[in-house]
Amino acid sequence: MTADAQYRNDAPAQVDVIVVGAGLAGLTAAASLKKRGASVTVLEARDRVGGRTLNHVLPGGEVIDAGGEYVGPTQDYILGLLKELKIDTFLDYTGGEDLYIAGGTRHRWDPNKQLLPPQLKAYEPVIGELQKLSETVKPEEPWNAPEAQLWDSQTVQTWILENSARLQVDATGAIEFVEIFFNSAFAGRAMDVSLLFLLAQIAGFGNESEKGTLVRAISSKEGAQERRIVGGSQLVSLKLAEALGTSVVLSTPVRKIEQADSVVTVTSDDPATSWTAKHAIVAVPPPLAVEIEWQPLLPAAHDTVRRRMALGTLAKCQAVYVSPFWEYEGLSGFAIKQSGTVKEMFDNSPPGKTPGVLNGFVGGHAWRAWQGLTDMERREAVLADFVEAFGVAAAKPLDYIEQDWTRERWTRGCPVSALEPGVITDFLPVLTQSFELVHWAGTETAVFWNGFMDGAVSSGARAAEEVLKKLQDARSRER
Amino acid sequence: MTADAQYRNDAPAQVDVIVVGAGLAGLTAAASLKKRGASVTVLEARDRVGGRTLNHVLPGGEVIDAGGEYVGPTQDYILGLLKELKIDTFLDYTGGEDLYIAGGTRHRWDPNKQLLPPQLKAYEPVIGELQKLSETVKPEEPWNAPEAQLWDSQTVQTWILENSARLQVDATGAIEFVEIFFNSAFAGRAMDVSLLFLLAQIAGFGNESEKGTLVRAISSKEGAQERRIVGGSQLVSLKLAEALGTSVVLSTPVRKIEQADSVVTVTSDDPATSWTAKHAIVAVPPPLAVEIEWQPLLPAAHDTVRRRMALGTLAKCQAVYVSPFWEYEGLSGFAIKQSGTVKEMFDNSPPGKTPGVLNGFVGGHAWRAWQGLTDMERREAVLADFVEAFGVAAAKPLDYIEQDWTRERWTRGCPVSALEPGVITDFLPVLTQSFELVHWAGTETAVFWNGFMDGAVSSGARAAEEVLKKLQDARSRER
Repeated sequence: MTADAQYRNDAPAQVDVIVVGAGLAGLTAAASLKKRGASVTVLEARDRVGGRTLNHVLPGGEVIDAGGEYVGPTQDYILGLLKELKIDTFLDYTGGEDLYIAGGTRHRWDPNKQLLPPQLKAYEPVIGELQKLSETVKPEEPWNAPEAQLWDSQTVQTWILENSARLQVDATGAIEFVEIFFNSAFAGRAMDVSLLFLLAQIAGFGNESEKGTLVRAISSKEGAQERRIVGGSQLVSLKLAEALGTSVVLSTPVRKIEQADSVVTVTSDDPATSWTAKHAIVAVPPPLAVEIEWQPLLPAAHDTVRRRMALGTLAKCQAVYVSPFWEYEGLSGFAIKQSGTVKEMFDNSPPGKTPGVLNGFVGGHAWRAWQGLTDMERREAVLADFVEAFGVAAAKPLDYIEQDWTRERWTRGCPVSALEPGVITDFLPVLTQSFELVHWAGTETAVFWNGFMDGAVSSGARAAEEVLKKLQDARSRER
Repeated sequence: MTADAQYRNDAPAQVDVIVVGAGLAGLTAAASLKKRGASVTVLEARDRVGGRTLNHVLPGGEVIDAGGEYVGPTQDYILGLLKELKIDTFLDYTGGEDLYIAGGTRHRWDPNKQLLPPQLKAYEPVIGELQKLSETVKPEEPWNAPEAQLWDSQTVQTWILENSARLQVDATGAIEFVEIFFNSAFAGRAMDVSLLFLLAQIAGFGNESEKGTLVRAISSKEGAQERRIVGGSQLVSLKLAEALGTSVVLSTPVRKIEQADSVVTVTSDDPATSWTAKHAIVAVPPPLAVEIEWQPLLPAAHDTVRRRMALGTLAKCQAVYVSPFWEYEGLSGFAIKQSGTVKEMFDNSPPGKTPGVLNGFVGGHAWRAWQGLTDMERREAVLADFVEAFGVAAAKPLDYIEQDWTRERWTRGCPVSALEPGVITDFLPVLTQSFELVHWAGTETAVFWNGFMDGAVSSGARAAEEVLKKLQDARSRER
């Protein structure tokens, strides 16, 4: 029996709250509402829960992540949820040496001793300066930063070109440097991300008590890649959904949301079947929300901000080997490349280290060339980069697993909406405002760890609170 | 009887080509196909044809435009179509003086003698420099311009900030200057438009034999605002649709496009009714095409470029008076404002000059504050700017007509997709490539006058040619 089979379409047709989307945000919201006594139905377009988290089960039963997977310090929401669900984590960090590959040369370096490979150390001032600027940005209202207008008027590339001389770094090298991280973090380029967006993200790489730092975001040790989840990240959603039981309805894309007379009516493909509630929480990627037919029409401000939030372009490509052979060489399996198809590689082996799994991100600009290749060509391009990093032993994997998130009908991109210039200052403030009976969740609406699993969970909790308050207010008025 | 009532849902269910969208692009394609012997059905979501052109009929029967309206030299496609349909144009230019309003002061100037008001003459070098740069950009392949990567990595605002000293212009003033034109041309800001996009647009403000110029785009005399259409711009679509007769099906939003075994099947809301054809031409605003369920799935490259093409935010607000009273003062009715809700006003009176109609564009940044106001507040904000320009006589119009294109379900913005940095170089080349049996039209796919009626017409002609060639090739193979 698959995990899906347990959910049946016998959710009650009339509830307090309908949640659209059974990713981490929607399921967290639903679980929180149920715990506080509200009745809830969750409608999910896919035939599975978990959104941008996805377990891939290897032939031996081991689970690897094909979607979001890492957790780390200050990510209190996801860490708290893991504890509550009794799901274990394990340290990603292995102690081997990392690789930096540039101009055909492999450079080994010890991440215990330094954040960056020596060859990239020259670019530390870029990190330092971005960090400094970010500390004037409040992640809950980046549009009010003192320099918000100026910073939102330029791309990160512009900022580098203007500041490289002052920071005494080579401009082209600095652009390549940030694009190594943008590759998977935003799945975009230095040229298509607003400087203010980057600074707001940095400010959000923390929590209420610890300020956000760029170093935390890019680190394994004591950083956002510190830990992985035993059983795979999708297990969180599977457990949440299991507890919600028949309230979760799969394979039910929401096509229409109508609001009238304090009732919200949600309809899927079969117009004869609909669900009604007092409120709805829409927890889908922002650009997908505009595909729903809204009655009344989604207000222009809500529509237009979401249309400006295209997700990045990212694929996760994994190769399976008998064992993590790179460890015999004293390597961690982590490698970054200045150029090529795969700019970042990780050891993605399951906790028991058998089999060995290499994971490569194809994001941003690299994705854009790679996606047009044939199946075989794409695989070869990825394996060529694995071979460049870890030798010919990487050339013939037991299995190759490609998860291109742009091809997922109900995501169409990953990992997050990376915002272009002008969007934060002119459009973003409306994003989390309710539209009559409808509230919004999803990692893009989060203050901290926006774009991460933690942001998804906190956004679900926040949306549930908003709706619970409204339900309580209504009960108070009835008395 | 309304113009709509003549179209009935008795279009043939099986044809050579289905056209999705009955705007200028779709109808031009359909008319061209029909003329060349192909059978065609046009499916339109709205209860009217015309897309972003829309006639508004005044109580006295006079027609004014609530959507795209101007035509001018080098716009050969729309001018040719007008001739073919025997639709007349009239000169917009009246001979009165124009106004430039800044800091509460009205400045009169004679547009016969100079392109810009004397107060803005200092910014002519900005126009000159943009013109020069644009001449290295081919509008059919802006991504191949020598400096494409650099120009697509920055916003227009960045370019102004970096070049204002060299051009000896005040930077803030220069940004305000370009935003007067961006207000309606892109309905965006200097901060949210790629420099390369602007240059590609300029290069396209011409035709095969005459190079594109920025001056032509912003001019009434011998420029893009030279003429208006007698009977309103929507008349073009109404006449095209009339000739297509029952082939045009209104109120039929396309929900699904399936391609299999050389047949494309298109389905609307009623899953029991569908249309099949050998090919389809999709002629809707690019961001709306992703709302259709595609089977097979719309390829990621096609999906992701369209999601990055949000249309600008623009409303056209018109006030009706007994007569064009501004003429008594020797004014043309044309005014531009440095700031405020309405940065551009035009005399939009019908050809007979009775009644008098003022038209104001609320676009870009101004729209973004204005759209959140109440109906009454929005009207008052617009009329306040009309009064500032033309005196208290403008305060009490006979009628006030507001057409906010962001509120149109089947457009959600206007006038065009103004592209952010990075979109042209990484994403745009795929836009006009066919997806199996499906071809693309719409003004955003045009080489010349992209975003104008002319671009819509040329794109429809181009898509029809592509499909006709395929139909002919298939017939040749059958022989």
